[in-house]
Amino acid sequence: MGRRTRSVQVDLGERSYPIVLGEGTLDALGEAVLRHTKASAAAVVTVPPVGRRYAARALRSLRAAGLRAHRFEVPDGDATKNLRQVARLYDAFLEKGLDRSAVVVALGGGMAGDLAGFAAATYLRGLAFVQVPTTVLAMVDSSIGGKTGVNLSQGKNLVGAFHQPRLVWIDVATLRSLPVRQRAAGMAEVVKAGAIWDAALFERLEALGERLLEVEPELLLPVLERACAIKAEVVAQDEREAGLRMLLNFGHTLAHAIEALKRYRGILHGEAVAIGMVFAAERSEALGMSPAGTAGRLEALLARLGLPTQPPDFPRRAYLSALRVDKKRRDAHIRFVGLRGIGRAETVPLTPAEILPPRSGRPRSRATSTRKGRA
Amino acid sequence: MGRRTRSVQVDLGERSYPIVLGEGTLDALGEAVLRHTKASAAAVVTVPPVGRRYAARALRSLRAAGLRAHRFEVPDGDATKNLRQVARLYDAFLEKGLDRSAVVVALGGGMAGDLAGFAAATYLRGLAFVQVPTTVLAMVDSSIGGKTGVNLSQGKNLVGAFHQPRLVWIDVATLRSLPVRQRAAGMAEVVKAGAIWDAALFERLEALGERLLEVEPELLLPVLERACAIKAEVVAQDEREAGLRMLLNFGHTLAHAIEALKRYRGILHGEAVAIGMVFAAERSEALGMSPAGTAGRLEALLARLGLPTQPPDFPRRAYLSALRVDKKRRDAHIRFVGLRGIGRAETVPLTPAEILPPRSGRPRSRATSTRKGRA
Repeated sequence: MGRRTRSVQVDLGERSYPIVLGEGTLDALGEAVLRHTKASAAAVVTVPPVGRRYAARALRSLRAAGLRAHRFEVPDGDATKNLRQVARLYDAFLEKGLDRSAVVVALGGGMAGDLAGFAAATYLRGLAFVQVPTTVLAMVDSSIGGKTGVNLSQGKNLVGAFHQPRLVWIDVATLRSLPVRQRAAGMAEVVKAGAIWDAALFERLEALGERLLEVEPELLLPVLERACAIKAEVVAQDEREAGLRMLLNFGHTLAHAIEALKRYRGILHGEAVAIGMVFAAERSEALGMSPAGTAGRLEALLARLGLPTQPPDFPRRAYLSALRVDKKRRDAHIRFVGLRGIGRAETVPLTPAEILPPRSGRPRSRATSTRKGRA
Repeated sequence: MGRRTRSVQVDLGERSYPIVLGEGTLDALGEAVLRHTKASAAAVVTVPPVGRRYAARALRSLRAAGLRAHRFEVPDGDATKNLRQVARLYDAFLEKGLDRSAVVVALGGGMAGDLAGFAAATYLRGLAFVQVPTTVLAMVDSSIGGKTGVNLSQGKNLVGAFHQPRLVWIDVATLRSLPVRQRAAGMAEVVKAGAIWDAALFERLEALGERLLEVEPELLLPVLERACAIKAEVVAQDEREAGLRMLLNFGHTLAHAIEALKRYRGILHGEAVAIGMVFAAERSEALGMSPAGTAGRLEALLARLGLPTQPPDFPRRAYLSALRVDKKRRDAHIRFVGLRGIGRAETVPLTPAEILPPRSGRPRSRATSTRKGRA
């Protein structure tokens, strides 16, 4: 380890847990897992590209701490984040004789965490769970808050459970092996945290710009820590997504529709979120919620990170139908998350047709769209 | 309704809920569901024999209370309490457009409750859930405490979640259509409640004997209420089965092995539990935990209810191997539940081989078995 670690607490009463950030901390995983669980065995669930690089170190550390440790692989990619893979994990856990004294350790990005977390939530009615996120997106977003689950063919994350981890253990050094496109996509969630909650963070991101894509721990750790703290704060105030937590869905309503329409192929979650955020900010301006220029600032920052900001070209009726299976729908309305300005968000109940006004041929519907023309 | 209802509270903080017992109360289900959930739609999940008799009344009552109500059927029997049926429910829920404002209502026995409850726990990361048990077993045992789940081919209830219902709504009149064999099997769990927790209840059961198999509300309601109260008390003290709640597994270690060996065919859960309880009581005597005669009293009462008390004839190694996948196993030991006498139970860590001593050719191994001979 060497360098000191930073720690953020997720305050959920008896289910509280720390997010620990550091550099080179993967080799200290075993002790940490032991300290935060009473586990005697560990099921490390990973995907091939991550497992190849880091599983051996994780297993070594767990074994050095006295745990029986096994490695399980699931295929990479959101397309196989499904019930079949969960069922395969159940079988593999049983084959290794894992019982309630085992902890499931997710080593990888959001997909590995969601899938392994759901298996942990449901195998033998729930095992202890530890997140070891190796992508920016997982570090600041998906590993925190206990949302686990899988996709159905009808839509994303339609099946799942709230199952809080006992520990989120972040080694930023693992980001070095992450393709820059993935790092950028994860930064979209950091940008989101600033946009909905913390104007100061947003300004800091604007100041850093492209440098956010380098893995420079001195630069990155404070930014990631702040994004983790925002997520932790929102989750602590609303664990089960009854209200406040919905703000974290900023940009996600359209993002889920885009992902579904593209069948989760050719676009990363963070990229879809980047597009969805710009769209949501534009809608916020059009609805008179936020001052002019808000969407432009957001779009400029995301573009500097190399992220897409324009929705792919599907017919409006395809978008409408994709929006209708969005699980945040409550009766006919979707709780659409809009901005009041940089650093402040709120939900507005809108129907899919209000989200996508009929006159626009595509989801894009800037306040100024009539002058800019349409694709 | 007419007659007054009885109510037992399951005290779990913000997850507390009532168990309401009455006669003819099915027609008041809708109001009750509305009072205890904020649901605007209801998914009534049932099995064909129960649905045929009671679904129309349940749906009518729910609709009269203003809920959109849909009926979903799953095949009857423990053999199809599996992930495939859960996946079918997800698809059917999606097809009806059910969102987080819906409540899942399980109408049926333990199987329907476990399966529907697991779907409720995991669809959209959790919907409100109401139990309407129509078997004795479900009324006093499986509908209370939030255990939901399904079987894998490797064993029973290996996948699941703790998901407390908002309400358990019991209409004892539904027992009139239940075959007497099923009523008797359910009474095994009532006997269990007395055996592990309440000698006075046990004596009352001994006094009633065969009359417990008639559906005589004046007789039955107080007995069922007391059994529900015992379950509620144990669950309230230990929701996640960290300790005390394991006492409810009295008789279940062997019962699960028997069910697995018989592939869940030809034996009812309560019948397997009856056999398992007599076996566990005999082992308790043999281990010097309980006074001589305890197992005999238990066996006599169960026999009066027409329940089997002798284990089916499988080789010892088959039993051992079945015991090893029992999910209560913790490392090499199983937390075996023994009796200290009628009305008092405790767990003892035993290996499968200690539970089934090698000299007995079958699980039966009374303290006096050397003199009685073996099969």
